[in-house]
Amino acid sequence: MAPLRESSGDPVLPDPPQGPLHVARARASFPWKELALFWEGEDTLRFKKAIFSALENDPLFAHPRGSRLSVEKYQELNFLRCKRVFEYDFLPVGDMLDSLPRVLALIECLGMYDWSLAVKFFLHVLTFGSAIYSSGSERHLKYLPKIFSLEIFGCFALTEVSHGSNTKGIRTTAHYDPSTQEFIIHSPDFEAAKFWVGNMGKTATHAVVFAQLYTPGGQCHGLHPFLVQIRDPKTLLPMPGVMVGDIGKKLGQNGLDNGFAMFHKVRIPRQDLLNRSGDVTPEGAYVTHVKDVGQRFSESLGSLSSGRVAIVGTSVVNLKLAVSIALRFSATRRQFGPTDKEEVPVLQYPMQQWRLLPYLAAAYALDHFFKSLFLDLGELQQGLLGKDRSVRQAELGREIHALSSAGKPLASWTAQRGIQECREACGGHGYLASGARIESPLKTVDFLDGYADILGRRFEGSSPEDLLDSSVPLAAYEWLVCYLLRESHQKLSREKRSGKSDFEAINDCQVYHCRPLALAFLELTVVRRFHEHTHQPRVPPPLRAVLRRLSALYALWSLSQHTALLYRGGYFSGEHAGKVLESAILALCAQLKDDAVALVDVIAPPDFILDSPIGRADGELYKNLWTAVLQENKVLERASWWAEFAVNKPVIGSLKPKL
Amino acid sequence: MAPLRESSGDPVLPDPPQGPLHVARARASFPWKELALFWEGEDTLRFKKAIFSALENDPLFAHPRGSRLSVEKYQELNFLRCKRVFEYDFLPVGDMLDSLPRVLALIECLGMYDWSLAVKFFLHVLTFGSAIYSSGSERHLKYLPKIFSLEIFGCFALTEVSHGSNTKGIRTTAHYDPSTQEFIIHSPDFEAAKFWVGNMGKTATHAVVFAQLYTPGGQCHGLHPFLVQIRDPKTLLPMPGVMVGDIGKKLGQNGLDNGFAMFHKVRIPRQDLLNRSGDVTPEGAYVTHVKDVGQRFSESLGSLSSGRVAIVGTSVVNLKLAVSIALRFSATRRQFGPTDKEEVPVLQYPMQQWRLLPYLAAAYALDHFFKSLFLDLGELQQGLLGKDRSVRQAELGREIHALSSAGKPLASWTAQRGIQECREACGGHGYLASGARIESPLKTVDFLDGYADILGRRFEGSSPEDLLDSSVPLAAYEWLVCYLLRESHQKLSREKRSGKSDFEAINDCQVYHCRPLALAFLELTVVRRFHEHTHQPRVPPPLRAVLRRLSALYALWSLSQHTALLYRGGYFSGEHAGKVLESAILALCAQLKDDAVALVDVIAPPDFILDSPIGRADGELYKNLWTAVLQENKVLERASWWAEFAVNKPVIGSLKPKL
Repeated sequence: MAPLRESSGDPVLPDPPQGPLHVARARASFPWKELALFWEGEDTLRFKKAIFSALENDPLFAHPRGSRLSVEKYQELNFLRCKRVFEYDFLPVGDMLDSLPRVLALIECLGMYDWSLAVKFFLHVLTFGSAIYSSGSERHLKYLPKIFSLEIFGCFALTEVSHGSNTKGIRTTAHYDPSTQEFIIHSPDFEAAKFWVGNMGKTATHAVVFAQLYTPGGQCHGLHPFLVQIRDPKTLLPMPGVMVGDIGKKLGQNGLDNGFAMFHKVRIPRQDLLNRSGDVTPEGAYVTHVKDVGQRFSESLGSLSSGRVAIVGTSVVNLKLAVSIALRFSATRRQFGPTDKEEVPVLQYPMQQWRLLPYLAAAYALDHFFKSLFLDLGELQQGLLGKDRSVRQAELGREIHALSSAGKPLASWTAQRGIQECREACGGHGYLASGARIESPLKTVDFLDGYADILGRRFEGSSPEDLLDSSVPLAAYEWLVCYLLRESHQKLSREKRSGKSDFEAINDCQVYHCRPLALAFLELTVVRRFHEHTHQPRVPPPLRAVLRRLSALYALWSLSQHTALLYRGGYFSGEHAGKVLESAILALCAQLKDDAVALVDVIAPPDFILDSPIGRADGELYKNLWTAVLQENKVLERASWWAEFAVNKPVIGSLKPKL
Repeated sequence: MAPLRESSGDPVLPDPPQGPLHVARARASFPWKELALFWEGEDTLRFKKAIFSALENDPLFAHPRGSRLSVEKYQELNFLRCKRVFEYDFLPVGDMLDSLPRVLALIECLGMYDWSLAVKFFLHVLTFGSAIYSSGSERHLKYLPKIFSLEIFGCFALTEVSHGSNTKGIRTTAHYDPSTQEFIIHSPDFEAAKFWVGNMGKTATHAVVFAQLYTPGGQCHGLHPFLVQIRDPKTLLPMPGVMVGDIGKKLGQNGLDNGFAMFHKVRIPRQDLLNRSGDVTPEGAYVTHVKDVGQRFSESLGSLSSGRVAIVGTSVVNLKLAVSIALRFSATRRQFGPTDKEEVPVLQYPMQQWRLLPYLAAAYALDHFFKSLFLDLGELQQGLLGKDRSVRQAELGREIHALSSAGKPLASWTAQRGIQECREACGGHGYLASGARIESPLKTVDFLDGYADILGRRFEGSSPEDLLDSSVPLAAYEWLVCYLLRESHQKLSREKRSGKSDFEAINDCQVYHCRPLALAFLELTVVRRFHEHTHQPRVPPPLRAVLRRLSALYALWSLSQHTALLYRGGYFSGEHAGKVLESAILALCAQLKDDAVALVDVIAPPDFILDSPIGRADGELYKNLWTAVLQENKVLERASWWAEFAVNKPVIGSLKPKL
């Protein structure tokens, strides 16, 4: 990989602006541009730069993002921006399957700008579009060009008012009427209204609606997807029998119109059943190549893994933004010091390092995990489109289901805690079948072959220096997962022997057994992938030390949340082990503190996108804050309601209630 | 304590409305009205009912609270509501010092309605008012009636752009000019602008401004409070030399106008120095009864403890609202079940119980801690006003400083995590001087007398039943605090011997020593106070079992976060101890699940205040949700910008950048 030619007129990575952060950057142990190139690749760097530049130079994308607008105005602006993204056509839809790294980059760029925009765009193009493409058949291909030209606008309608995670409980019905060759889509009551559906509130003309399919005679064949027109594309007025609206203001992403819909006997052509896993003949007979109802159900919901992977990505991007702001702030904000006269940047405090640097390491570790999982998902979807029915394909689907199901909470919790920490600092199932050899296309459970040997291992680190490489926590994680597997298996057997039903027994094993097992397993996977990525031969020599430190810090810090179990199960014994672990974490924080600003330069977007006066690349903390305050609307103006204070005085106690 | 007469026409505690939650309530093990009476007292219950009724029946307090309004409209509405509270005069200001439980109740009621309102009101009346009262002298008494009649409106201006926690670093100056007998208040630059000051943005006419006092000749006497007029009460326009404005939109509390101010040589009369700890003669000589600069500084900032205690209270109230909503939701929301046909309320799942019930216990434990600490603070302030200069008074001040400093993060972190858990479930310095006997007016550190004995203790619980009383975790907490005290002391000594400065040595002991010590100490104090409150003889017999379970759950759950240290230090040994602790927590969750809805009825405000469709007292979950959605403005209306989709289509790729 050739270094970037900075001599050209349009460098991919311009130098950061001069300012107070310059001093902090100069202390870094590695060349940040080389890391950016290694981490992203030159094509992705150029692609992201083109997107960011387009947004920054287009007045439609000027602030405000939306937080200061009414919901109605914000949704309008967000739709106009979404339309503009089609005009930019950064990544032609036909190219998407062949350039997954660019899809990743586009999601990240739009998301860093505003998740309301990114989600609106990708729900229409990817979620709605690929639901039709992969759940439908030849007869549905006619819809695809209409999606890409914005002739229609789509949404994915699964969740109902009273059913979300328990998708089998969904109650919308689709009865087939052979006399007209139509399905009748119906919501039995308001609790079966589709709810929370992104793009449905004000924009969508068409919805992929999941409903229980009934054939004449009353037999139910389970949940199937149907393409239902909900609004007239010429007027955006609702179609007959469809009551559709916006669910109102949410805690966030208010540029996105999340909506609801109730169907009153809405008739759609037979052909609009998305018939990949099951179809109905004109006469009303149900035909399927998948005999098993459960397997049919799994197939129709396979697309939900991509939703979970998307949440991993959203979490990672948000964490990257938060650590960028918090670390730049911490490198410039001074408070207290050895004497009253001399104040030190708060990043110099071990406490601040320990609060923030593990989340910087987590941002890198989870960024790598997300990208690698996204590529795994791409492989799965290629197989689906190629109608691959091999055992390996099925096992890959299950493994990705497990990784995305556990990855969603791990990434979103880590991001939520990390973002909260940053704010404050600026001011499972699925793996209980132990015993049998498990097929693992992604090799995430291959280590279980050594189950018995691993359980016999004990911690061997005697000094903090022994722990400064992620191979030590990796070994500890293998022990931990095996230990929790044995404990969970024993607990489940005991509960069942005591006479509990399977439902009860499994529920009674969640809190301290299956839940920590699922999290520990996923942490092991993230740690292993990050370890392998940072220890591969093609890492440029100047980057090796800093990347290995990041890997070790994330691994040890994650592991330290399980110290109690390490002691309880005998992997750790004596005071020394716990103390060495703590010392190693603190030592890594101290080693990484001078690299923090440069590590942030690699993952931070341009200032226009980051949109944070306290996190700008120049580090002119107070100047930028002061400027932002004074640029606000009416900042120095007297309140319009001044006379309510100055003239209309209250009569104290005039309304006093009897107590 | 007599039972409430429910036969009267106006019951203090009306029966909850009929609805789906009725079934859950009927399972409770105790009479909830009796608990409400024990927990609050009849006078407080009546007082709160009067306040809530007044707000509910006044159209000015009808929704929206503010989140859907522009900041400007929200601030106007919040000011009008604040004025209306003066008209209601629920608690005449003169009565406040003598009726602290009613002050607590008023804070809670207004805060449950909207913290923007409560903070606006109490910053003016209590923070601004008591700063003048307790930092000033006879010559400032003239301002008090003007505060209570709203002739003037006040704020408390300490924090600057570049200095918050390090108050010694504050840079606003007050130079005395004997020729005119005036102080000249000046901000050297924008980094010294007062910033984040509540009520300053648009409303305040007067500010208590902290500035470095200089006498002629240039001697600096440290930070002192000055009363500075910043706006004309007749017009709300700024006074000459004062640049004052609003800092803009925040993450929350946008009804409150947080502001900034810069002073350009603003002259105020000599008499407007709040001269309790130091004064300047007309000729310019500095006079004080407190010789020590450090002690003078502590005295002038004594009022900050009340700010920290207020944050404990804010956190507790928010946690009470969140657990009320989440537990009512969880008792009515059904998802999955032993069969496809039969779904169970999510509160029946041990996982959901374990996620929510410890926070219910924490809401009770911290509510009691907050109220008891508020009364301690009242005692301190009585002493200050009585000019008590005893050793006990000074020790009381230090102990409350320590409790409020550690209580603020414990309460706000517990609330933040609890509220996040609820959302997801609906979807130290100061004690290192070991060795010497410590004066402890509140007895929080008296147990340290048994330091050596306590360190010799070992965990003795052999079955979960042994742990079902909070005396067991209480003993463990005493061991834990002593252990962390010893470890912290040894670590600090090592760091100093290694040649580090005090500043460095203390910073290097924070993460794994002083920080957990401070938190464990404060948790011990909360656990002890809740244990004593729930085990006292005057607890009515029907309430004893449920209150003891709550106490044990909070104590064990808090303790379980420290299991690693219990093992490491040898208090726990073997797998059994850790497993018993987990089993006891799960057993208590199972015992408390049927009491959860009734426990919530005790702490939840009326539906109007709670303002949550998923948390209403009737439990008509989906009906209330559906109603709330349909009552929103323009919910079914076509978007005003429909033609932007229907007519103005994008030309795909028309703006495509070169990549």
